[in-house]
Amino acid sequence: MAKNLTSRSENYSQWYNELVVQADLAESSAVRGCMVIKPYGYAIWEKMQSVLDRMFKETGHVNAYFPLFIPKSFFSKEASHVDGFAKECAVVTHYRLKNAEDGSGIVVDETAKLEEELIVRPTSETIIWNTYKNWIQSYRDLPILCNQWANVVRWEMRTRLFLRTAEFLWQEGHTAHATKEEAIEETEKMIQVYADFAQNYLALPVVIGKKSPNERFAGALETYTIEALMLDGKALQSGTSHFLGQNFAKAFDVTFTNKDGKIDYVWATSWGVSTRLMGALIMAHSDDNGLVLPPKLAPIQVVIVPIYKGDEQLELISKTALGIQENLRKKGISVKYDDRDTQKPGWKFAQYELQGVPLRIAIGPRDIENGTVELARRDTLTKETVPLDGLDTYIETLLENIQQTIYNKALDFRAKNTFVVNTYEEFKSYISNKTGFVLAHWDGTPETEEKIKQETKATIRCIPLEQDFEEGTCIYSGKPSKQRVLFGVAY
Amino acid sequence: MAKNLTSRSENYSQWYNELVVQADLAESSAVRGCMVIKPYGYAIWEKMQSVLDRMFKETGHVNAYFPLFIPKSFFSKEASHVDGFAKECAVVTHYRLKNAEDGSGIVVDETAKLEEELIVRPTSETIIWNTYKNWIQSYRDLPILCNQWANVVRWEMRTRLFLRTAEFLWQEGHTAHATKEEAIEETEKMIQVYADFAQNYLALPVVIGKKSPNERFAGALETYTIEALMLDGKALQSGTSHFLGQNFAKAFDVTFTNKDGKIDYVWATSWGVSTRLMGALIMAHSDDNGLVLPPKLAPIQVVIVPIYKGDEQLELISKTALGIQENLRKKGISVKYDDRDTQKPGWKFAQYELQGVPLRIAIGPRDIENGTVELARRDTLTKETVPLDGLDTYIETLLENIQQTIYNKALDFRAKNTFVVNTYEEFKSYISNKTGFVLAHWDGTPETEEKIKQETKATIRCIPLEQDFEEGTCIYSGKPSKQRVLFGVAY
Repeated sequence: MAKNLTSRSENYSQWYNELVVQADLAESSAVRGCMVIKPYGYAIWEKMQSVLDRMFKETGHVNAYFPLFIPKSFFSKEASHVDGFAKECAVVTHYRLKNAEDGSGIVVDETAKLEEELIVRPTSETIIWNTYKNWIQSYRDLPILCNQWANVVRWEMRTRLFLRTAEFLWQEGHTAHATKEEAIEETEKMIQVYADFAQNYLALPVVIGKKSPNERFAGALETYTIEALMLDGKALQSGTSHFLGQNFAKAFDVTFTNKDGKIDYVWATSWGVSTRLMGALIMAHSDDNGLVLPPKLAPIQVVIVPIYKGDEQLELISKTALGIQENLRKKGISVKYDDRDTQKPGWKFAQYELQGVPLRIAIGPRDIENGTVELARRDTLTKETVPLDGLDTYIETLLENIQQTIYNKALDFRAKNTFVVNTYEEFKSYISNKTGFVLAHWDGTPETEEKIKQETKATIRCIPLEQDFEEGTCIYSGKPSKQRVLFGVAY
Repeated sequence: MAKNLTSRSENYSQWYNELVVQADLAESSAVRGCMVIKPYGYAIWEKMQSVLDRMFKETGHVNAYFPLFIPKSFFSKEASHVDGFAKECAVVTHYRLKNAEDGSGIVVDETAKLEEELIVRPTSETIIWNTYKNWIQSYRDLPILCNQWANVVRWEMRTRLFLRTAEFLWQEGHTAHATKEEAIEETEKMIQVYADFAQNYLALPVVIGKKSPNERFAGALETYTIEALMLDGKALQSGTSHFLGQNFAKAFDVTFTNKDGKIDYVWATSWGVSTRLMGALIMAHSDDNGLVLPPKLAPIQVVIVPIYKGDEQLELISKTALGIQENLRKKGISVKYDDRDTQKPGWKFAQYELQGVPLRIAIGPRDIENGTVELARRDTLTKETVPLDGLDTYIETLLENIQQTIYNKALDFRAKNTFVVNTYEEFKSYISNKTGFVLAHWDGTPETEEKIKQETKATIRCIPLEQDFEEGTCIYSGKPSKQRVLFGVAY
């Protein structure tokens, strides 16, 4: 077990907080609720960005950039959006500071008050649809398929690194379409892109589904979500895609001439994932030794540590190590050779375990004699001695195997912790133990959903798209239900 | 000449504003001084980011992310920094909105007033050095070589798209070092990286030099700059690198134990380039037909336009066009085949000229018969008919040639518009015509610099690093001078 790291069984929440800081991923800043993403954490986020950006472009999207600030009045324009987003937010009221007359420092210049306050964007539908109004006249101008990588601010009272911070980084796609069908197709396409990313890069199995009306995005007609199960049995919403209907087009008067020459409002979608995915990544795979990273998102995929006494041994080992490094790099594998003499091998082993480097190569004098190296897998914590000959190909395959193994483990965990229940008693028993996902029948009403939430803290994570559509009766009201829905206690 | 585009000779400033909008690069937003960067403009910025990011990483830097907000008191800590940056800025005073009691919309909730106001970062030295305090104890923790890609806000009163906007995108490097020498070396290394980028990617020759004390960054002991000459004869500061000494370490009490076991303050640098480079790119190369893009930064390097009547001809031409596209893509060249039937070839030609696509291929029925295509260069506006056979290799070389030609043209323009003067009369004559850079002797005092600025609007752009260090007498005061400095009227 890593030194100083609380074990998960002792205190999961503390384990998470300590791990984020000790693995050099992020830390709290001097500004309440805002985090500093440290270089190692940011390198993982950059890998996520790079993959997602490619996936967005392959599906026809382009990037653009819209203002950080949104005029306050914009939030009043879409009725349900205002309640969801224009509450806890950062409000800019002045545009100048001045030296205090008593020399005590700097103060706000009260003469520099904005006529209309500006809100630091909590999400950009309003400013973007106000812009799209000028971009769209005819069906020929559609679709617009824009994405933005940006920072957003929501003034959260209780914050946790990556999971819930006042400022966070994300991408937000905002698309405009000529028909309802096309907009719905886009909404569904993007939730599939997120699911693909989660499964194939984060090694994270997700349930794809629709949100219940209560849990929809403010202003959406339909919200699709991917829901993942964390190792403590809690659910994490990991990405959402919204069909916005014509709500924002109506709020910002965005119309177009269709092929028949008639004027109609434009159809909209929006979709996003954020640095919250870092939280998902950590809580889906890591253990009491620290982080476990899937190779596809690891900034360092392989680390080489020399075990030696004296310069002569080091020189011999370094020659081999640098050869391995070169061969692996040719295969596109990122490798670090850590020959620092300021730290001992044991310290390095613990450090790279803590930071989740998928594969460690140790090379000692005996390895050089035997033409072997020692490989240690981070995910299984197993070691093996393998020949130098053909090592690069072996490692290439091994990294793929590690990626798959991590995914399979998460999938297996989810399978063991997803429960099908038929009574409210059973439901409460599972939920109170916070042991996982619960599939149960629900009568489809917001009232029942709200009561279950009040009584158990469990929410409907989603109405899954893929499952056996077996009919039944609601566990709470006994009324008829068309399919089971996914419940969980959420982050 | 492009339709609707004012010519440069008629009104350079209007030409610029129109070009930025018509070429789909950016536009003003509903928020005063903030721009929307449109997809085509953002694609160019992404190319710049990608190249710079690689260059930063190759020189040992890593990315990180620091908070958008800075507590007001932080600006008071570094004496000269406060005057430079804590004046015209966006001030967050509240964190909640509420529905107005009279139902008229939403208003600021006065009960949700921050104890200390937050400033939207105009630059991040203060918040970053407050963070580094916790990262640095010993010389073993140094150097720290962090870069951040971020948005910043400076409440400019007079704004222009890309050149001066309230919010802009940039990167800011912030490094921490154990010795003065190492920090100075870093400062100089990064201005060379910027110069390399400007010359080899933007195709923009720059003068590298030091700023005079008057023009230094607020808080810096030395500011290095790259200065470029725009086609209207005005200068554009295109990137800066600052040696900050121990100023920020002292302001935020960042000390370390050096190798001798003694406590010392840490040495700092910072360096940045911004979306202002988009303005430099536009004003350095473009003409009355629109944008001229160096191939290395062009989102579309080659566009193929079919010239046809009827589906049969189009089918034949498309087969050839798609073959060319495939071959060019294999060489890493970005190609668009525009076979839209909604626009005529002439319209397409004008559009791609306006948007600065470096190379246009036109293919008509006669070309198919002859096994040729027509190539049109955007930079020289020349056309040639070349054989299909070996076209991909020919174009690969041609794109390199275009990149070089654009650079040479800018270099030639600068050579013709850089004047060496020996009297103040000559100086005023050149400067009042705004025709370029002026190299003149200066006595090294802020007083002289200030008087010249008041009388002529010309500022010292830099004290060039590379030139003949010929001694002389100041054009204004007649006092001795060690070298000529570079004057210009700046954006």
